[in-house]
Amino acid sequence: MAAKTTPTGASRPSGLPPLRRVQSSYIQVADQLRDLILRGDLAVGQKLPSEAEMAPLLGVSRSTIREALRILTTEHLIETRRGIQGGAFVAVPDSERLEGMFNTSFSMLALTNQVDARSFLQAMRALEGPAAALAAAARGGDQVEELKRTAAMVDPADQEAAMQQSADFHSAILRASGNKLLEAMGRPVSAVARSKFRRTVPGLEFWERNQRAHQELLKAILAGDENLAYELATRHIDEDLSPYYLPPEEADRDGAGA
Amino acid sequence: MAAKTTPTGASRPSGLPPLRRVQSSYIQVADQLRDLILRGDLAVGQKLPSEAEMAPLLGVSRSTIREALRILTTEHLIETRRGIQGGAFVAVPDSERLEGMFNTSFSMLALTNQVDARSFLQAMRALEGPAAALAAAARGGDQVEELKRTAAMVDPADQEAAMQQSADFHSAILRASGNKLLEAMGRPVSAVARSKFRRTVPGLEFWERNQRAHQELLKAILAGDENLAYELATRHIDEDLSPYYLPPEEADRDGAGA
Repeated sequence: MAAKTTPTGASRPSGLPPLRRVQSSYIQVADQLRDLILRGDLAVGQKLPSEAEMAPLLGVSRSTIREALRILTTEHLIETRRGIQGGAFVAVPDSERLEGMFNTSFSMLALTNQVDARSFLQAMRALEGPAAALAAAARGGDQVEELKRTAAMVDPADQEAAMQQSADFHSAILRASGNKLLEAMGRPVSAVARSKFRRTVPGLEFWERNQRAHQELLKAILAGDENLAYELATRHIDEDLSPYYLPPEEADRDGAGA
Repeated sequence: MAAKTTPTGASRPSGLPPLRRVQSSYIQVADQLRDLILRGDLAVGQKLPSEAEMAPLLGVSRSTIREALRILTTEHLIETRRGIQGGAFVAVPDSERLEGMFNTSFSMLALTNQVDARSFLQAMRALEGPAAALAAAARGGDQVEELKRTAAMVDPADQEAAMQQSADFHSAILRASGNKLLEAMGRPVSAVARSKFRRTVPGLEFWERNQRAHQELLKAILAGDENLAYELATRHIDEDLSPYYLPPEEADRDGAGA
């Protein structure tokens, strides 16, 4: 999206200066509208001119405008509403909707082995350590009840419940950080790691240790101990989770690295 | 992208069970194709059936297929090629192309004040601290030359050059981490913070201190000192950068937090 033109890779006749690839009309329209939105020239909530109004301004057909608007919709930059008061509006951006996009992207990187389990664990560690410290600084903030609820012990023999509990608690910590960026990046990183890289079905012992680690971390957060919360959150990833995501010899060697 | 149906917000006649919003045909087609790609049922590089082949299978028009493919193109899941051997192919995912998408999203969150300067600095700190430690663990890895080149002093009176040097060095550290996730998330976070939140035009003193901090960090990375690299990278954000992004009283109080 940044580069609107790329030099052609093809060889060119001598004497010709470098040429740029032709861009489809709808891409050119989408690029212009995106720039206006990102510069703030079109404000959040503002209604865009209708397709019929924009088409002659830009010298394209209404269907070209419609295609451009679909791209911006996919990027969550605009939303369309129906009815008499309907049309295309600059969308209120929503960090939670970003997560779906990140999920898709990270899944593909994992699926094609371009990013391995170790990198996912390092990224989890990078985001969840500081999130736990920030959650402690706020002593859980508005998420105290959610943290307590999701840290509550479940039957470790119930795989399904234990897995859900774990996902929910990690997610609650990211939210309790009060930082929407850490949350929007951290949740998809953990979710993709969980779904793509778990190597074995963890046994009772894993789930018991996992839940004890959560309880300890909860205590540090509620006590407002930032350093301990950071320490426990990162150690939980290095010592409890890494063995289930990394080949055993690597997990033994250095946990999640970094 | 995760949720394909959402409960309607509208009130409903009593006696009716909850209904789900109708999804446009092209969204349904895009959702199905995305699932096939993310599950690996359609492999990277594989050619999709033509619009003419898919349309009757899915009971839609060729233009509906085309619209669905445009959405997947925007998500970088497929790419279309022209000519006799052309068509739609499952794209090789590319962490660098993700950055454009992240940039757009983070810009919007910053623009609408949904995520403030402090959160951006916390996220930078979360990603760049571990990246510096990983870069040190690899003693710069394949990026040694890039790190040295981008850490080289430039004239601090040349704003433009000094700003570019700083962006390049931070970017080189993320790349030297060898972790494509940290890089794909970290670069847009820094870039958006830089473009949206710089409060003042920094003076000579800032650029001199900034460059000295880079040189120190470079030394720690080349020496393979992970702890020192982490410490210097995070301190650089807390002490050098925060004052230029946060209101003075907040910057004095606690740096970038966490």
